[in-house]
Amino acid sequence: MEKSFIHADFLLKGETAGKLYHEHAEKLPIIDFHCHLNPKMVADDYRFRSITELWLGGDHYKWRAMRANGVDERYITGNATDWEKFQKWAETVPYTLRNPLYHWTHLELKTAFGIDEVLNPSTARAIYERCNELLAQPGFTARALMKHYNVESVCTTDDPADTLEYHERIAASGFDVKVLPTWRPDKAMTIAGAADYNAYIDRLGVVQNMDIRTFDDLIDTLKARHTFFHAQGCRLADHGVMAFPSSDYTMSEVKAIFAKVRAGVEPDREEKGKFQTAMLEILACMNAEAGWTQQIHYGPLRNTNSRKLAELGPDTGFDTIGDFRSAEAIARLFDRLEAKGRLAQTIIYNINPADNDMLAAMIANFQDGSVPGKMQFGAAWWFNDQRGGIIRQLDSLSEQGLLSRFVGMLTDSRSFVSYPRHEYFRRILCNLIANDLDEGLLPQAEMERIEQMVEDICYYNAKRYLKL
Amino acid sequence: MEKSFIHADFLLKGETAGKLYHEHAEKLPIIDFHCHLNPKMVADDYRFRSITELWLGGDHYKWRAMRANGVDERYITGNATDWEKFQKWAETVPYTLRNPLYHWTHLELKTAFGIDEVLNPSTARAIYERCNELLAQPGFTARALMKHYNVESVCTTDDPADTLEYHERIAASGFDVKVLPTWRPDKAMTIAGAADYNAYIDRLGVVQNMDIRTFDDLIDTLKARHTFFHAQGCRLADHGVMAFPSSDYTMSEVKAIFAKVRAGVEPDREEKGKFQTAMLEILACMNAEAGWTQQIHYGPLRNTNSRKLAELGPDTGFDTIGDFRSAEAIARLFDRLEAKGRLAQTIIYNINPADNDMLAAMIANFQDGSVPGKMQFGAAWWFNDQRGGIIRQLDSLSEQGLLSRFVGMLTDSRSFVSYPRHEYFRRILCNLIANDLDEGLLPQAEMERIEQMVEDICYYNAKRYLKL
Amino acid sequence: MEKSFIHADFLLKGETAGKLYHEHAEKLPIIDFHCHLNPKMVADDYRFRSITELWLGGDHYKWRAMRANGVDERYITGNATDWEKFQKWAETVPYTLRNPLYHWTHLELKTAFGIDEVLNPSTARAIYERCNELLAQPGFTARALMKHYNVESVCTTDDPADTLEYHERIAASGFDVKVLPTWRPDKAMTIAGAADYNAYIDRLGVVQNMDIRTFDDLIDTLKARHTFFHAQGCRLADHGVMAFPSSDYTMSEVKAIFAKVRAGVEPDREEKGKFQTAMLEILACMNAEAGWTQQIHYGPLRNTNSRKLAELGPDTGFDTIGDFRSAEAIARLFDRLEAKGRLAQTIIYNINPADNDMLAAMIANFQDGSVPGKMQFGAAWWFNDQRGGIIRQLDSLSEQGLLSRFVGMLTDSRSFVSYPRHEYFRRILCNLIANDLDEGLLPQAEMERIEQMVEDICYYNAKRYLKL
Repeated sequence: MEKSFIHADFLLKGETAGKLYHEHAEKLPIIDFHCHLNPKMVADDYRFRSITELWLGGDHYKWRAMRANGVDERYITGNATDWEKFQKWAETVPYTLRNPLYHWTHLELKTAFGIDEVLNPSTARAIYERCNELLAQPGFTARALMKHYNVESVCTTDDPADTLEYHERIAASGFDVKVLPTWRPDKAMTIAGAADYNAYIDRLGVVQNMDIRTFDDLIDTLKARHTFFHAQGCRLADHGVMAFPSSDYTMSEVKAIFAKVRAGVEPDREEKGKFQTAMLEILACMNAEAGWTQQIHYGPLRNTNSRKLAELGPDTGFDTIGDFRSAEAIARLFDRLEAKGRLAQTIIYNINPADNDMLAAMIANFQDGSVPGKMQFGAAWWFNDQRGGIIRQLDSLSEQGLLSRFVGMLTDSRSFVSYPRHEYFRRILCNLIANDLDEGLLPQAEMERIEQMVEDICYYNAKRYLKL
Repeated sequence: MEKSFIHADFLLKGETAGKLYHEHAEKLPIIDFHCHLNPKMVADDYRFRSITELWLGGDHYKWRAMRANGVDERYITGNATDWEKFQKWAETVPYTLRNPLYHWTHLELKTAFGIDEVLNPSTARAIYERCNELLAQPGFTARALMKHYNVESVCTTDDPADTLEYHERIAASGFDVKVLPTWRPDKAMTIAGAADYNAYIDRLGVVQNMDIRTFDDLIDTLKARHTFFHAQGCRLADHGVMAFPSSDYTMSEVKAIFAKVRAGVEPDREEKGKFQTAMLEILACMNAEAGWTQQIHYGPLRNTNSRKLAELGPDTGFDTIGDFRSAEAIARLFDRLEAKGRLAQTIIYNINPADNDMLAAMIANFQDGSVPGKMQFGAAWWFNDQRGGIIRQLDSLSEQGLLSRFVGMLTDSRSFVSYPRHEYFRRILCNLIANDLDEGLLPQAEMERIEQMVEDICYYNAKRYLKL
Repeated sequence: MEKSFIHADFLLKGETAGKLYHEHAEKLPIIDFHCHLNPKMVADDYRFRSITELWLGGDHYKWRAMRANGVDERYITGNATDWEKFQKWAETVPYTLRNPLYHWTHLELKTAFGIDEVLNPSTARAIYERCNELLAQPGFTARALMKHYNVESVCTTDDPADTLEYHERIAASGFDVKVLPTWRPDKAMTIAGAADYNAYIDRLGVVQNMDIRTFDDLIDTLKARHTFFHAQGCRLADHGVMAFPSSDYTMSEVKAIFAKVRAGVEPDREEKGKFQTAMLEILACMNAEAGWTQQIHYGPLRNTNSRKLAELGPDTGFDTIGDFRSAEAIARLFDRLEAKGRLAQTIIYNINPADNDMLAAMIANFQDGSVPGKMQFGAAWWFNDQRGGIIRQLDSLSEQGLLSRFVGMLTDSRSFVSYPRHEYFRRILCNLIANDLDEGLLPQAEMERIEQMVEDICYYNAKRYLKL
């Protein structure tokens, strides 16, 4: 009988790889420290009406593939039925061979639903019905899926203006997977337009019951929210930028820009740059003072397609890899923070893999010996989150720094069945290291250390480093 | 007996690779949709006086290698005899090991001339004589070579001011390889200096019998030529730029710049940028309106060596890989065209492989579902057109998009024996996919789809997409 | 018995690789044409007090790894004892698996000290004692180590203000390893601040007994020093820049900037750019006129961490990979030199591997046929000096130029036990080429040429090219 596509040794070549994965990586719990799960769905223990909702409700990776395959928008984000949309996806899947979607799709079918068939037009109907049948069963709610995948803790992504009510409900419910908030104050940091910014600032004031008139009010309010997030178990911040900000500024300039915007006047490009640069630095100081770990995601070019932005809104598959120059700007931020003793534990993620070596070398300049791997080159992010991208990130990190101290993988996902990406990462990691062993690039004499390294990267490093 | 260097399974590792290549890729015709063949040579059914003329008459790849090997310019572009030049090339060949020239040279010797020996000083004389002997035979004229290589159609590269008389002669002759023009209006788009530009514009006016005084006249004339090209079977445009143009401009500025240049005044750098940006957008709209496919080649730095430019002219081996930032500029052009419903089918090629992932992600933002693979990441171009570069392009495309929808390879060549580059590409493609199959990265269960994918990339995708 | 980690076929896969390495590469002498050895230590035939001094006294690669591993600065550059520092290093080593330090460390233990055990906390004491014991023996002085490693010649890195007294002493001593100076006039080329620059210029004047008042005086003095270096056997220059300089300037501007700085006034950013651009061009002309080979190292971002710079000074592990755009600037310098017939033999090194293909293509534009491989893409430098980086440099060079003409490896090191990096490079090179042979990418028919190519890259090319 033919072996199914996703089998026990998928991606694992040779005995060493199998041993590393099955004896060391496979059974470890998942700490998914950066994701975009909707906490309300966990609080409600959400039940999905169909595999279409679960898979195609918000996954812009799949949407991009369908558009590239010539599928009309009606079947992607439009008003076609669940079956029609699934059918179009099933038609697209065989055209995604060599794309990570092909592996993810079949890993999810196998690990969530126990399905061994490959998805294509001839298997679509049966798979659709089988998945929907299972989704109606108790073992397939949001919480059940998290338990099924051996998730220990997840960190969602949350705005300072968020009340965190769902996180509170989850904690109160006694659910034994930790669901913690992450502080992501991008809307306070970056001014796109005055009207939207002011509406946001007003909302922020309301939630904290503070009146935000001046820049100092803003910072006070953010600090109060930061403290509130801390009380809810938050230990991670996240900051997203396109070009890495690096303007010269003075605090009086920044205050004046804020005042101007609050008066309804549009800031110019230069003012936006100054404001963002200052805010990132101030927010980073808050993180250090609270003893948090901060994440920085930089480099994408967002909303490239104006027509689609107008039709579908943001985050619908029209963001892309930028090619901004970033080294000096990154060094400058870290240097300013380090100089005042306010450089928190930091995980930085690049979107353009041409930056990999630059970034892997960069973090080493700010390792201060206080804690192993204080500065982290984050796991292959977004457009890099595939086998090739994962290997390139691991190789750059290995060449420039200490792979052993890497805090490892995360899903960055809003899906409750994306946890096999941890499995995918672990298989790739084990295979890479096993291959090095088999080729004599790593010493057999340190086998125990190597096994420990695998376990550390898959689980223990994140546990020790993040202290969730 | 020792196997010859170029043998049936050259580049193919294992049974799967051999099967994919020999049963699927090998026998498909060639659609060479971007080349620089001289149509007059096809019209005349040109006969080459020697392998030196055929190989060394215009091949700047070989010239660069010879210069790097310490060969004097006399033997490269100078007045040495054909034999002397060939001899110097034969001395250089063994020093090109690991360079693509080594593979190309022996693929051409084998497939055009049936020669199995490797070229080096000791075999040079015999190979020279054998090739020249064959070139004097009927099977080795321009047309015969095209038939020999199973070429179905080629698209040359032609200026709007070209009369296309040779394309007409070829069509009228009943030659059963389609030789179609490609619209390449770079000289109308880019102003280097006023004098050259005006001479060109005058020539363009003459060929269309129009008097080009204003910018509107220019556009009218270009539209008339575009229509004429269409009538001659042209369905492809091509636009070449160094840094991707992205200036702010207004139409009145552009008209004023044109008027100024027509008055003999040199435009400044900023004006050149505005003009080129506007022209690229206008020309792209023409392509969309005609239902054509447009190609964009961007990123090289040209004529780096002034002394050699003065001595030998352009296109003699002194262009190189630039490192311009391009993502925002590319997104901007596509967005403006998409916003007005004027984004034609597009194949975009980068010269710097550090852009591969950026570009592979970029095209996905403008896939609109109207046709599979509407936006194409073009095959590894120029300095990337070797085994490593081809693999990197295929991998980036696979990771960010749909390899299955790729329109594949082209020679970009002015040589009548460069068709083995399609063979080279096909062998690399088959080996890559077979390796994935052998490693379990692709499913055996989709073998038929995979075989079809190979055939599609080698032939059928281009046929369907380009509708030549 | 288990094979030791560093064994005869370390990094060599298969028979062909073993044959190429053991029969061709292994026994060739070392020409280490770029290093940072302290010539005084050679003159004095320095004896190391401990493996800690030898290994950890100045090696910022190791320091960076220790900091990343959470080691306190006291054990790195601080006042801990030799044993304490070594112990901390031994604790770090098992965490450097997959980093080049792991390979280097064990290659050095094996080839200098004959130690087969891997270094980790449990072997640390015995290895420490064994090394120190050996270092006290006659075969382990600076000169003895150089002889042990079959070094034929080394080129140190020297400032024009250096008296070269130690080079003279070495030459006079009859030591049969050539220890030659390299002219590195960075301090004269680049103005960081007026005070430091003036102090340096004064020192330069004193050593040559010239009074440097005007820019012309500076150039005259540098020419005199250049001549003096030549007389001491110097045939190599080296120029280091961060962003590749490319300002427009006139000679009268440059003279005025120099006068201003000599008057104690700080130059602005633009003036510094003009000055550096002019100086690099003038210094390059000197190199051409003397018939020297010049090296250019470009691209790092230096002293990123101000606090550590203040505490520890420069070159302590806080420099990093920059991401400057460089192609136009490099082309411009080479073009200006070529245009006046003053382009010397040049070896150019990039710090950001994303530039590899750009740079490999760039050098081909200035190959003039005068000497094979006149323009050289330098060996993988600094952050790239590991297995992956070495392979990437070799591949880019192979794809864009002539690997056969490559002048090969250098240590770039201040350590007397870093010569195994030549062995490391040679093993990687032989394995790469052997792999190509085994896969049929290189022809068996040219085996002799290939063996010669290996020997050339390891030794003979540098010997012929550098004429030391």
